[in-house]
Amino acid sequence: MLTKQKDDFAKWYNDVVLGADLAEYSPVKGCMIIKPYGYAIWENIQKAMDIEIKKLGASNAYFPLFIPEKFLKKESEHVEGFSPQVAWVTHGGNKKLQERLAIRPTSETIMYDVFKNWIQSYRDLPLKINQWANIVRWEMRPRLFLRTLEFLWQEGHTAHATKEEADEMAESALRMYQGFAQDWLGIYCVPGKKTEAEKFAGALYTLSVEALMKDGKALQMGTSHQLGQNFSKSFGIQFLDEKGRKNYVWQTSWGVSTRMIGGLVMAHGDDKGLILPPKIAPYQIVIIPISQDGLVKNHISKIEKSLKEIRFITDNRIQQTPGWKFNEWELRGVPLRIEIGPKEVKENKITFVLRNNLKRQTIDFKQFNPKKLLDSLQKELLAETKNFTEENTHQVKSYSEFKEIINKKGGFIRTYWCGDSKCEKKIQEETKATIRCIPMRQKNKNGRCIKCGKESKLEVFFAKAY
Amino acid sequence: MLTKQKDDFAKWYNDVVLGADLAEYSPVKGCMIIKPYGYAIWENIQKAMDIEIKKLGASNAYFPLFIPEKFLKKESEHVEGFSPQVAWVTHGGNKKLQERLAIRPTSETIMYDVFKNWIQSYRDLPLKINQWANIVRWEMRPRLFLRTLEFLWQEGHTAHATKEEADEMAESALRMYQGFAQDWLGIYCVPGKKTEAEKFAGALYTLSVEALMKDGKALQMGTSHQLGQNFSKSFGIQFLDEKGRKNYVWQTSWGVSTRMIGGLVMAHGDDKGLILPPKIAPYQIVIIPISQDGLVKNHISKIEKSLKEIRFITDNRIQQTPGWKFNEWELRGVPLRIEIGPKEVKENKITFVLRNNLKRQTIDFKQFNPKKLLDSLQKELLAETKNFTEENTHQVKSYSEFKEIINKKGGFIRTYWCGDSKCEKKIQEETKATIRCIPMRQKNKNGRCIKCGKESKLEVFFAKAY
Repeated sequence: MLTKQKDDFAKWYNDVVLGADLAEYSPVKGCMIIKPYGYAIWENIQKAMDIEIKKLGASNAYFPLFIPEKFLKKESEHVEGFSPQVAWVTHGGNKKLQERLAIRPTSETIMYDVFKNWIQSYRDLPLKINQWANIVRWEMRPRLFLRTLEFLWQEGHTAHATKEEADEMAESALRMYQGFAQDWLGIYCVPGKKTEAEKFAGALYTLSVEALMKDGKALQMGTSHQLGQNFSKSFGIQFLDEKGRKNYVWQTSWGVSTRMIGGLVMAHGDDKGLILPPKIAPYQIVIIPISQDGLVKNHISKIEKSLKEIRFITDNRIQQTPGWKFNEWELRGVPLRIEIGPKEVKENKITFVLRNNLKRQTIDFKQFNPKKLLDSLQKELLAETKNFTEENTHQVKSYSEFKEIINKKGGFIRTYWCGDSKCEKKIQEETKATIRCIPMRQKNKNGRCIKCGKESKLEVFFAKAY
Repeated sequence: MLTKQKDDFAKWYNDVVLGADLAEYSPVKGCMIIKPYGYAIWENIQKAMDIEIKKLGASNAYFPLFIPEKFLKKESEHVEGFSPQVAWVTHGGNKKLQERLAIRPTSETIMYDVFKNWIQSYRDLPLKINQWANIVRWEMRPRLFLRTLEFLWQEGHTAHATKEEADEMAESALRMYQGFAQDWLGIYCVPGKKTEAEKFAGALYTLSVEALMKDGKALQMGTSHQLGQNFSKSFGIQFLDEKGRKNYVWQTSWGVSTRMIGGLVMAHGDDKGLILPPKIAPYQIVIIPISQDGLVKNHISKIEKSLKEIRFITDNRIQQTPGWKFNEWELRGVPLRIEIGPKEVKENKITFVLRNNLKRQTIDFKQFNPKKLLDSLQKELLAETKNFTEENTHQVKSYSEFKEIINKKGGFIRTYWCGDSKCEKKIQEETKATIRCIPMRQKNKNGRCIKCGKESKLEVFFAKAY
C-alpha cells in the first residue's frame, strides 16, 4: 500500500521509487542501486539529451575519476565549496599514496589542467567537451535520486575567446535544459539566474531551471555556469588571438543528473504511483489480457503487430490477476494500458486507459491511434505542470503573508528583493525558503524588498527547495 | 614522424594513439584521458554491443562505485586475486570512515549482496544484469588503453537455476564477444578456456577470446566466467525450486573494456597509423578538396548529399595543404578518402583511396558506391587478421623449437600440454609465454606435453601476451 501524497509526501516518494522498481538503497551508506526500470529511464534521457548536446557543438570525452588534491586547491572559491563533500583515496595497490586523490565531485579542475595544452590559438576555440560520468559528493542525508553520495550526470565544459561568447554558451545550455525538461520530461521550468549565495563555487554567475514539485517545493533541474576567467587564470589557459596577443579564455560548465528522475516522480506522480511521459517511458504501452483464451491471444498479437516504433510490453504472467496487473503498471507509470478480453475480441475493439486520467475507453480497432494518444498525453503532462506552477506562484503584499504562504501552501513566491545577501539569509533562517532564481523575464517595474522594504526592480522567485 | 612498427612496436603504438588523438596520459599517474576521437570509437562500440547484450536477455542497471571491505573478503579466491590492485577510500566529507571502501575493481561482490534479495524463487531466474561503468585497478606500468589504472567497461552478471544453464550462458556471452570482435572490429579471435592459473579469481572456469596483434603478441579481447556456486554460497543467494527445495544459484560474469581500442590499433594499424573498421569508425569517409574553387565546392556538396547514412567529414581547413590532410586522416585511420579537384569536377568523377591498400582510383560519379566499398573493406580487415593469425600460428616439434619461435617470430604456438601447472609455470619463466587458452576446437589426437613429454590430448595456444 502506497502512502498518500497528502499524508506524507516524502514517504509517498520513497514508496513510489521503491515500489516502481526504479532504485533502492545500497549496503554502502548514501549510495543507491539504479534498478533496470529506473536505469531504462536514464538511458532514454541520455539518448535524447546526447543529441541535444551534440547540437550545441560539444564532443564527448572521458577524463579521470581521480583529481590530485593540488588541482582542487587551485581555484580558491571552488575548493572552499567542494572540499567538505570530497571522498579521498589515500591507498592504492597496498601502498599509501604520496598525494591523496579526490574522487571527482565535478571535473573542472582535472579537465582544465589539460585544456591549457589543448588550447594554443584562437583557432582552437571554442572548445566544447561533454562527459557522461559518475560523481561523488559525500552526503549524510541521502534520498534516492535527489541526494546520493554517488550519482550519474553529464557535464559540459567549454572555452571561448570572449566573455560574450561564454555568456551566450551558458544561456544556450540553459535553454537546451529548459527545452529538454519541458519537451521530453513534460516538466514546466522557470529559467533564471542564481544569487551570489547560491551560485556554483568558482563561477562568475550560475543559471538554472527550476521546477515546482507537487508538494510545493522547488527542484533544480539543471544548471549552467559562466565561469569567467576564474579557472583559466588559475590553470593558465591562454590563447593567442588574431593579433598575436595572449588572452585568458572565458569558460562555461553545465550539467544535469539522475536527480531529474526524482523530478519526474514528484512533478507527475499521484496516489497510484508514477506517471511517465511517453517520450522517456521504458514501456509506452502495456497490454494486459483479461483472460487466457486463444482468441484473446490472437487479438493481442494483431495489436502488437500494429504497434510500430512503440515500446510496449504484454504482461502474460499467469500467477497474477488482471486487477493486480493494473495496479502494478499504474504504480510503474506506463502511459497507456490496453485491456483485451472476450468482449474486445468479439466486437474487434480495444479498451484502453491513459495513466493520467485513468478513464477506461473502448473504441474500434481501426480507430485506435496510439501515437496520437501518447503525443497528447505527453503534451497534457507539460500543460498540467505549467498550470500547477502558475496556480502555485504567489504574489505577496507583506513579509507576514510571505511567511504564511511558505508555511501553509508552499509553491513559488514571486516578489522583490533588494539584492543584499543579508536579507536573503534572514529570510532563509526564518522561513527555510531560498531564492531559487532571478527569473530571466523581469517585469522591470518598481517594487520593494519583501524583507527590508528598500526600493528595488529586482524580481525573484522564492521557494523551499530540494 | 611515426616510429616504424618493425623498429619499435611499443613506441609505434604510443605514437599512433597520441597522434591519432585517441587518448593521452593524464596528470594522475596511470590514468588516461580518452579524447573525443577515441571516445567516439568507444561510443560506437557501446551502441553496437549494447544491442547484442540485450539480445542475450540482460537489462542494464547501475551499482555503486564503492564496495565495503567486508564484501570483498567474502569470497576468498576473489579477494586474494584483487586486493593487490585495489584503491581505498578512507576519508569522506572531512571524516575518517569507520570501514574503508574499495573502488570497484569488478562488481561481483557489490551486486551479489543484493542479488540475494532479488532472487527468492525459480520464477526470479534467470536474472541477467549488465552494467556500463568505470573500473579501477591499481597499475604501476600503465599503457594507454591496454593497462590503465581506470578504464571503462561493461560487466554482465547472471544467476541461473542449474550448472548447465550457467555453462550455456558463459558460452553464449563468449560467442557474442567473438562475433562482435570479428564482425564489428574486424579482428579474428580464438575462443577457448583459460587454465587454472589464468582464470578469474573466484571462478569455476574462465572462457576468453584471444587475438593476435601485429607484433605477434596476444591480446585478450573479452572474458566470460562460469562462477559456479562460489559466490552464491559466500553471499547466500538461494532460490526455492518448483518442489520447494532451497538451492544455491549458479552464476556467470563477463566483460569487455576500452582495451579493445588498443586491440583495434595493434591488429590493423600500419606505419602510416590507424586503420579503422568502417562499422565503428567515427568518420567512415573524409572528403578533401584539392583546391578551393567554387566548382569543387559544388561537386563536393553533390557528393555529400549522396552519402546517406554514412558518417563523413569534409576537411575544409585552408591553412593545411591537401597532402598534409592525407597524412593526418591516414594517421587517424579513416577507411575511405575522397579527393576532389578540378579534374574530378570537369569529368564528373570521384577519386578515392581506401585506407588499407592506399591505392588511388578514379571512377564516374554514378558508379561510386561507398557502402559497397566500406562493406568490402570491413570484410577485408577480418580476412587479413585471420590470415595473419593462421600464418603466425605455429606447430612445434620440440621445446627448443618452441623457445626459438617465441623469441624470434612470436605468434601463437599450438601444442600439447600435460595439464600440470608446474610445466605451465616453467615455460612462462623460461620464455615469458603463457597459455592463452585451451581452444574450443580440439583435434582430439594423442600428443605429448611440450615441456615434460607426458602423453596428453590437451591442445593449447601459447603466446606472449599483453
